Amino acid sequence: MFKKVCIIGCGLIGSSLARAIKKNRLADKIVSSNRSEKLNKKVIELKIVDESDSDTKKIAKMSDLVVIATPLSSYEDVILKIKDSLKSGAILTDVGSVKENVINLVEKNIPKNVSWIPSHPIAGTEESGPESGFSELFKNRWCILTPSKKAKEKDIKLLKTFWEKLGSKVDIMKAKQHDYILSVTSHLPHLIAYNIVKTSLDIQDKKKSSIVKYSAGGLRDFTRIAASNPIMWRDIFIQNKKNTSELIDKFIKSLEDLKKAIESEDGKKLEKIFINTKKIRKDIIEAGQDVKKPDFGRK
Amino acid sequence: MFKKVCIIGCGLIGSSLARAIKKNRLADKIVSSNRSEKLNKKVIELKIVDESDSDTKKIAKMSDLVVIATPLSSYEDVILKIKDSLKSGAILTDVGSVKENVINLVEKNIPKNVSWIPSHPIAGTEESGPESGFSELFKNRWCILTPSKKAKEKDIKLLKTFWEKLGSKVDIMKAKQHDYILSVTSHLPHLIAYNIVKTSLDIQDKKKSSIVKYSAGGLRDFTRIAASNPIMWRDIFIQNKKNTSELIDKFIKSLEDLKKAIESEDGKKLEKIFINTKKIRKDIIEAGQDVKKPDFGRK
Repeated sequence: MFKKVCIIGCGLIGSSLARAIKKNRLADKIVSSNRSEKLNKKVIELKIVDESDSDTKKIAKMSDLVVIATPLSSYEDVILKIKDSLKSGAILTDVGSVKENVINLVEKNIPKNVSWIPSHPIAGTEESGPESGFSELFKNRWCILTPSKKAKEKDIKLLKTFWEKLGSKVDIMKAKQHDYILSVTSHLPHLIAYNIVKTSLDIQDKKKSSIVKYSAGGLRDFTRIAASNPIMWRDIFIQNKKNTSELIDKFIKSLEDLKKAIESEDGKKLEKIFINTKKIRKDIIEAGQDVKKPDFGRK
Repeated sequence: MFKKVCIIGCGLIGSSLARAIKKNRLADKIVSSNRSEKLNKKVIELKIVDESDSDTKKIAKMSDLVVIATPLSSYEDVILKIKDSLKSGAILTDVGSVKENVINLVEKNIPKNVSWIPSHPIAGTEESGPESGFSELFKNRWCILTPSKKAKEKDIKLLKTFWEKLGSKVDIMKAKQHDYILSVTSHLPHLIAYNIVKTSLDIQDKKKSSIVKYSAGGLRDFTRIAASNPIMWRDIFIQNKKNTSELIDKFIKSLEDLKKAIESEDGKKLEKIFINTKKIRKDIIEAGQDVKKPDFGRK
């Protein structure tokens, strides 16, 4: 499919992508660039890529597909490094979770004849680093493309096919719409998970062992989400701050409403709310986005 | 261990308990009482109990162990029904998630020679009803006992052994302490899960299909928790309203703090918080309260 693919940043997502490309034979050569020389050595050792070097400019040269898989805050740095070595006719993409800001940042810096088509594979685990990656990560998961205005139609089509060959289902939408939807389905839930763990950490100084011990009652499931990559999430919240901030306000308003109902012992209102929230679970299972099997009782 | 055990309310927990007692041969006879005749028939059909009847007073007679496994709001009704048929020397327990209120309510209504020892098995799934129960539900899970003042030492010991034979680890503590710890580890997390799903439901009228479609980015994991039994949780929040209410305030204060950091793009602060919340996950895994295997990437 491609002669040379260059992945910038071999973390969980970057290394999974390299593994998936190799497994599905979608490139003759896969190279990567990491700031840390230790990481460059490791990805060669693990046979994830054929070549890896901290000199991003040099290693990106002659690539047909370049994938930025670093935290959002380093995009500017990355793009300034590679802009002069991007091959004419190449496709440039990324795997970031926020689109609107970076789409403009990159667009104004790259040569005309490069198709800049941001990707967002909605996949991941709470683990980080190349050792945690695996080739099946993208299978049956959604991948959203938010092509820049100047991206060529044929390249959009090619990148769509590329993700489909890795097992993903692909949707194409505007960056603004992407950022809004993801703020609801992903960014707010993560922020809330961080916050609930933070709240209990503030308390736990007194009761640490008890809180860890009895965490299976619900808190445990939040700590899993709140163990996701700190740098990645720091960048996501800042890059999508308008949507995030508006949603926090809505969330707090709704929580204050629940608090009032509890304090006034308004059982009817609480029951109605909880019956409603139960329904969406059925929709999610029917949409194939989760399995019915309960895992709340897992060890 | 017991001649006759009576379970009042054969839902997920009650029916799991009956199954576990049967499997471990801890009673010669297991009976149950449910308000719905349909349910009484069903539990006989499913061979979960030997006898089942809506006449709670009649069926509780001569039981050595009586377990209240109904929602907290029906305890008063249940206790008024059974108080005159409780056998002298019997043990009375429950499986409820809040203790301080009910301990007093029950204590003042029962005969002297009955040991009232509330239990809280920290186990459950998001499913409800007797079909969802299974005998292994209590295995490797904590069960907290909060004995009333008048409970006999030998009965506390016997009930502890009973739960241990079902596979549980048992802790004994004061009702007040139980309610505080559980408000942090279980009640607040559930309320927050309900609230995040509620917040996204309020939005979804416009974007329903997108929100369900991309829910695997984080929201999905909350909908699982927010699909738990609405009646049970309505009662828990109301019964533990003082602790819940105080925790909501702490949670909102902490969230507003996060919001400020995001709006002022205070990356250092966010990073520090997220690194901290990541640490508690390690403690939980080391305490055997969850497994390390990531499941965020599950289908």
